[in-house]
Amino acid sequence: MKILVLNGPNLNLLGTREPEIYGRTTLSDIEKGLREQAKEAGVELEFYQSNHEGVLIDRLHEARGRVDAVVINPGALGHYSIALRDALAALDCPVVEVHLSNIYRREEFRHHTVTAAVVSGQITGFGPLSYRLGLAAAIELARSQRKG
Amino acid sequence: MKILVLNGPNLNLLGTREPEIYGRTTLSDIEKGLREQAKEAGVELEFYQSNHEGVLIDRLHEARGRVDAVVINPGALGHYSIALRDALAALDCPVVEVHLSNIYRREEFRHHTVTAAVVSGQITGFGPLSYRLGLAAAIELARSQRKG
Amino acid sequence: MKILVLNGPNLNLLGTREPEIYGRTTLSDIEKGLREQAKEAGVELEFYQSNHEGVLIDRLHEARGRVDAVVINPGALGHYSIALRDALAALDCPVVEVHLSNIYRREEFRHHTVTAAVVSGQITGFGPLSYRLGLAAAIELARSQRKG
Amino acid sequence: MKILVLNGPNLNLLGTREPEIYGRTTLSDIEKGLREQAKEAGVELEFYQSNHEGVLIDRLHEARGRVDAVVINPGALGHYSIALRDALAALDCPVVEVHLSNIYRREEFRHHTVTAAVVSGQITGFGPLSYRLGLAAAIELARSQRKG
Amino acid sequence: MKILVLNGPNLNLLGTREPEIYGRTTLSDIEKGLREQAKEAGVELEFYQSNHEGVLIDRLHEARGRVDAVVINPGALGHYSIALRDALAALDCPVVEVHLSNIYRREEFRHHTVTAAVVSGQITGFGPLSYRLGLAAAIELARSQRKG
Amino acid sequence: MKILVLNGPNLNLLGTREPEIYGRTTLSDIEKGLREQAKEAGVELEFYQSNHEGVLIDRLHEARGRVDAVVINPGALGHYSIALRDALAALDCPVVEVHLSNIYRREEFRHHTVTAAVVSGQITGFGPLSYRLGLAAAIELARSQRKG
Amino acid sequence: MKILVLNGPNLNLLGTREPEIYGRTTLSDIEKGLREQAKEAGVELEFYQSNHEGVLIDRLHEARGRVDAVVINPGALGHYSIALRDALAALDCPVVEVHLSNIYRREEFRHHTVTAAVVSGQITGFGPLSYRLGLAAAIELARSQRKG
Amino acid sequence: MKILVLNGPNLNLLGTREPEIYGRTTLSDIEKGLREQAKEAGVELEFYQSNHEGVLIDRLHEARGRVDAVVINPGALGHYSIALRDALAALDCPVVEVHLSNIYRREEFRHHTVTAAVVSGQITGFGPLSYRLGLAAAIELARSQRKG
Amino acid sequence: MKILVLNGPNLNLLGTREPEIYGRTTLSDIEKGLREQAKEAGVELEFYQSNHEGVLIDRLHEARGRVDAVVINPGALGHYSIALRDALAALDCPVVEVHLSNIYRREEFRHHTVTAAVVSGQITGFGPLSYRLGLAAAIELARSQRKG
Amino acid sequence: MKILVLNGPNLNLLGTREPEIYGRTTLSDIEKGLREQAKEAGVELEFYQSNHEGVLIDRLHEARGRVDAVVINPGALGHYSIALRDALAALDCPVVEVHLSNIYRREEFRHHTVTAAVVSGQITGFGPLSYRLGLAAAIELARSQRKG
Amino acid sequence: MKILVLNGPNLNLLGTREPEIYGRTTLSDIEKGLREQAKEAGVELEFYQSNHEGVLIDRLHEARGRVDAVVINPGALGHYSIALRDALAALDCPVVEVHLSNIYRREEFRHHTVTAAVVSGQITGFGPLSYRLGLAAAIELARSQRKG
Amino acid sequence: MKILVLNGPNLNLLGTREPEIYGRTTLSDIEKGLREQAKEAGVELEFYQSNHEGVLIDRLHEARGRVDAVVINPGALGHYSIALRDALAALDCPVVEVHLSNIYRREEFRHHTVTAAVVSGQITGFGPLSYRLGLAAAIELARSQRKG
Repeated sequence: MKILVLNGPNLNLLGTREPEIYGRTTLSDIEKGLREQAKEAGVELEFYQSNHEGVLIDRLHEARGRVDAVVINPGALGHYSIALRDALAALDCPVVEVHLSNIYRREEFRHHTVTAAVVSGQITGFGPLSYRLGLAAAIELARSQRKG
Repeated sequence: MKILVLNGPNLNLLGTREPEIYGRTTLSDIEKGLREQAKEAGVELEFYQSNHEGVLIDRLHEARGRVDAVVINPGALGHYSIALRDALAALDCPVVEVHLSNIYRREEFRHHTVTAAVVSGQITGFGPLSYRLGLAAAIELARSQRKG
Repeated sequence: MKILVLNGPNLNLLGTREPEIYGRTTLSDIEKGLREQAKEAGVELEFYQSNHEGVLIDRLHEARGRVDAVVINPGALGHYSIALRDALAALDCPVVEVHLSNIYRREEFRHHTVTAAVVSGQITGFGPLSYRLGLAAAIELARSQRKG
Repeated sequence: MKILVLNGPNLNLLGTREPEIYGRTTLSDIEKGLREQAKEAGVELEFYQSNHEGVLIDRLHEARGRVDAVVINPGALGHYSIALRDALAALDCPVVEVHLSNIYRREEFRHHTVTAAVVSGQITGFGPLSYRLGLAAAIELARSQRKG
Repeated sequence: MKILVLNGPNLNLLGTREPEIYGRTTLSDIEKGLREQAKEAGVELEFYQSNHEGVLIDRLHEARGRVDAVVINPGALGHYSIALRDALAALDCPVVEVHLSNIYRREEFRHHTVTAAVVSGQITGFGPLSYRLGLAAAIELARSQRKG
Repeated sequence: MKILVLNGPNLNLLGTREPEIYGRTTLSDIEKGLREQAKEAGVELEFYQSNHEGVLIDRLHEARGRVDAVVINPGALGHYSIALRDALAALDCPVVEVHLSNIYRREEFRHHTVTAAVVSGQITGFGPLSYRLGLAAAIELARSQRKG
Repeated sequence: MKILVLNGPNLNLLGTREPEIYGRTTLSDIEKGLREQAKEAGVELEFYQSNHEGVLIDRLHEARGRVDAVVINPGALGHYSIALRDALAALDCPVVEVHLSNIYRREEFRHHTVTAAVVSGQITGFGPLSYRLGLAAAIELARSQRKG
Repeated sequence: MKILVLNGPNLNLLGTREPEIYGRTTLSDIEKGLREQAKEAGVELEFYQSNHEGVLIDRLHEARGRVDAVVINPGALGHYSIALRDALAALDCPVVEVHLSNIYRREEFRHHTVTAAVVSGQITGFGPLSYRLGLAAAIELARSQRKG
Repeated sequence: MKILVLNGPNLNLLGTREPEIYGRTTLSDIEKGLREQAKEAGVELEFYQSNHEGVLIDRLHEARGRVDAVVINPGALGHYSIALRDALAALDCPVVEVHLSNIYRREEFRHHTVTAAVVSGQITGFGPLSYRLGLAAAIELARSQRKG
Repeated sequence: MKILVLNGPNLNLLGTREPEIYGRTTLSDIEKGLREQAKEAGVELEFYQSNHEGVLIDRLHEARGRVDAVVINPGALGHYSIALRDALAALDCPVVEVHLSNIYRREEFRHHTVTAAVVSGQITGFGPLSYRLGLAAAIELARSQRKG
Repeated sequence: MKILVLNGPNLNLLGTREPEIYGRTTLSDIEKGLREQAKEAGVELEFYQSNHEGVLIDRLHEARGRVDAVVINPGALGHYSIALRDALAALDCPVVEVHLSNIYRREEFRHHTVTAAVVSGQITGFGPLSYRLGLAAAIELARSQRKG
Repeated sequence: MKILVLNGPNLNLLGTREPEIYGRTTLSDIEKGLREQAKEAGVELEFYQSNHEGVLIDRLHEARGRVDAVVINPGALGHYSIALRDALAALDCPVVEVHLSNIYRREEFRHHTVTAAVVSGQITGFGPLSYRLGLAAAIELARSQRKG
């Protein structure tokens, strides 16, 4: 079983940018944690970040039919990239959307993401724990899809 | 460590009402699963459901300072009960909001819940798995709060 | 054949509150009229009023599978109680929503009720006659459902 | 006692157009049923349909002071014809608005009709039964107006 | 010099419908007054009313290039008939829009008419005097256009 | 009989500012024309302009019970000065609002003025002729009020 | 003279919940202060709090015709409970709505309460002083109603 | 194969009205061009224009089951005639909506037409070429429907 | 201790303008009552009214650091004068906003004032009593600020 | 004569993604068809697809002054990419926007594209036929521009 | 060359009011800096502040044709004074709008000013530096206008 | 001291695209001017343009901690790229946003940019002068940050 964890723009800055909101954990700390979690669960992990909408879409296309589930933190693209949304909608495997902070708390962009309506489920507000829960959910969903 | 799992209106019908959306698992199936998960994690579980907004608020008041975390599925009250929201905001412990279905997919009530802005995080769309992830999150949050 | 007539908040004041809008007929006058109408039609009638959203929901749950149709005047709850709406949506029998006054005439709350989208049909603006037409409709719908 | 039943655009297609929403009963079936009901009640019935807003308005003008009540299914004109609304408001007799389907269920035109605010009452969602209830209501309103 | 005075739906009821808003002057009283005013000013008057949007548009088409100015009371059509608006926009002569009552006072349809943006000017709220001022304006505009 | 013609901010620039919209007639040209029209009609005229909202309000207060009608071109204040609106509403005599250009044609401020709902009637879009029609209307309204 | 002071959901937590907004005075401190103030003014005081919308409505019904004025702090219910609003509208005695904090300062729920339109007056933002001013107002209003 | 080309209000003025937007081609020029195109394609053409919403609806009803496709330029009715929309929705054959100018360029009525959601496809902005493309599309759709 | 009571536009007309809404008490009656109340409380009172936004702002600037509290009835300026709001926000002493009528009852301007968010508290709907309660509140707030 | 056909994000998935909406024709099938059509018309065709907004913009810049017309299916970028819109607006040649499905039918993104206002015309809803009509339109527009 | 620097309401408080937002520089400090800058550039400076909208408008009228450019900080009036906007639009010389703070950062009044659309350009958020940049821009614009 | 000047999509076309709005100065003309200005001020300049959102974000990340200030003309991305906005917010140095034209004058996209809320200040509408003022501002801000 193979799971792709995809990260959108500016997430490479994690741990250095506005740490009072996003904490001091870096994206590479998160990657390390997820790799261990994946190993224990016996699943293979791909972990990728890009600031380019087009690159993320290409990556999702390339993963179609090849991975068993996707965990995505679309970052700011989640608020307006209907193209990313369409790429997610074109996947047949389960997709879990995660956010580090509680996006419903920030005054300005409080409405849900455009991606929310096409993913299996959404986990928001738990910091790095969002990723761990997201991976756990993705694994379980992928397993029941296999059985199902 | 004690965790309260609270369920709002109509969730007692789970498994019998609109099963094509909510599945056939009953609330008591979910309770059983969570009790096992809690036992394994060595935490005590309280599980409660009510169709009465006032009863849910009373219960949250009563739990203040007594439980270490709350997992709540506010059901339809999440869409309009600012009173429930205020009761959640009055808690000092972590609060995890869970929803069985992806509320951002249903045309009509697609905007986020009024409770979303006062909880620690939100997990939506994974069916009964939402509860399991929610309990896992609540336990972890309660633990880091203890340490912190 | 059994039909439940359910009345929401403040309807117990009927006949005494703002009579220039709602007339001088009391809820008990209405009940009496409906009981006669039910008797003539050979159906059994349950008639109930509560100011508590939770009590109304409990009552609807309790009536599931036991009554053949529901006539409901949700009162002000019709404007915001999505929980009541969900309880109505969970019924398998026909539901008729009635209102004494023409709610589309009052400037402030002119939009339709949140319950409107889940009931079989709606009758508004005929005063106590709304109830009589509602009961007639409920009986007919219940009968065709039986046959159907 | 004379009652006018007026039908707006496209209702002549009833029974042939989108039968999964509007059923297979034709407008002429409805007319026949209403004529029997009128006969039993001892009232005279006029039944008319037009796809022309102007013709419907002319007909309402012509009926002023001549009929005792109007039952109208404005069809799509109910959503935008303020001219039809004004013609209804110019009547002194009771007016009952009926709709076959529950207009509050269709996503797109869900808001109430512009005519709703000027009629005595509204009956929606009962299929052909809407007309029968409408005629019953119109007769009762006309009778109490006579007495009153 | 020839001037067309055109009247929209329900204006034939003037003097009998809601006289507390529109007064007791009939449309034929207004016509008589305008004919005298036209005679004194040495202009020819055409005066017409219809409840049919299509008939009003046909009439405006027919008047193109034949009359020197148009005075129009579009009635309720002013609120939604973009087709009437387009017919007015297709005229080369001055167009004066008049309304008997102050349309900006009625809560519900308070926004300006869709025709307002294509006419030369608008006169609202003076009762039958609106027509007299409108005719005076139309004559003056037609005269300066001739000179101009 | 005495009539006050009041002019709001920037109208003193008339004839020099954006002449392609407002023409080359100055406010003093307009005043001269109105004085002649008033003389012929045997009414006394007061003509005043100010760029100060407070001065305009003071002037209206001072005129209460002393003049028989008011003609006001509120200029830009018509779009937001609720204080001016209240001062107009406090008058017992007829008030006619005039505008030189068709305010419903300009994209940006196309909605009606806040004063529109409290005046007797409104005349817009006829250039200096708006004033002449406005004065004529004011005289007639004042006369019928005297009789009435 | 008898005055009912009614308190909505979560007000029982006063002094312990978000003290930086609501201060450290408890509801029982407030009750004590009001009892003294009532005693001095020679009026009888009833003081009640509930987290249940239905219970508050029942209490208001029960007080109809029995108390001379009501002081209500609806708490969060003020933002959405049209049922509570209707119960207040059904009272014949003066009703004073009070809020501890300035509700117009909080970004999220800044619009006025739904109850605001049916009460005699509203006092917001003075902390516990809001209650004292509210009681003073209620006494005065009740007295002038008696005289009046 | 028979195809109906239907034209809404004011299209009879084509070539004479606002030629800078709509060009100098008349409707009869368009008709001639389409007749040739139809002849070449071996299909029969009906071409009709009316300023009356009701007449257009009657014509569509009459064409049901008799023509193989409809090309419609609804003109201004496209912006508000839900009745026309319902008549189009009642057709079983393909419907192509055409507009001469790019309706998304005009500031004021920029939103899509109400008919857009019920037609097969829409062609806008190509002037008379819109009709030719529309006829070509209609023929092709009708052919594949026959086969299909 | 010195308290400034400031009154906005049109309040000089109090008692004469729309007495059915604002009563027959004049502003000078109110001033007299407040002077007595101030005397009893041992505080000095300044009382001022102006129809000029700029004059009110100048007065507030001049009062900075010189008075202990401000009671303001901004009148219509409360609905749009962000400049007045900024002048209030620039004060360090407590500010109490009062309104004679319940501004949340009037359909048109029902939203809260722009000043509401920068004052200490707001008292609306009690007629002249609003001022008395406002002065009482201002005195108490000034006193606790002194202590505090 | 040279024509560029440009395709936005996710269109490379055509034929495999949501075939019930977009059909089973692949983008390469479409390309082949267009090449034949171009050959017959004696025009040269460039056909390109990218998931990267920036790449599409670069390509449009590069094509300026070099191609005679552009046919673009912007895909999801049409809903939000104002940068793509500006790149289209910077072209001097005709631009035809095509969409496979009727975008006005999908509830969520029903409003027109941001590109719609800067293109020559738009063709939506005909599946692969949209492209063929689009190419035909582009050729004709390019030809008349050459002549013109 | 003469340049007018105009300052709106409350700017006289600069340096004393909310210094955490606006800093401690006073308006007279700013004036002194600008006078030096003007001297160096060889231009004459007029510097003026008023809390009165009318006074600011009078000043702008008086400056027409006499000064070569205007730098204006409209303060709060920029958010609603369409009269000030019209006075600016009536100037023929360049106008530069400056703001000390970044007005797009404050939640509440985040939309652009009504004056923004009629000025040459806008400089916001640089504190006193906004004025210096504004003066530099005004001088350059005035110079190129002279040449131009 | 090092300053990065960054340019968004389509700005490479400057001087050739819509010159009546943006003038005939090319981006390379602007670069040359800024390089001279930088040289005089003794600061080092980096100047870059890209049509790719991702490339711009990468560049901003790369510049973090390396440059002393950023001047950015986001072009159309300013209207929707929340990802670019987040990249700007992640910078610790001052950021100045510049626009050539007055974006508040164009009807369609008149609202402020999404980037406006995270930059130090904004300069719009001065053509190439916007850049020069922007660079001057950036230098001054960088200097005071160094001192501060």
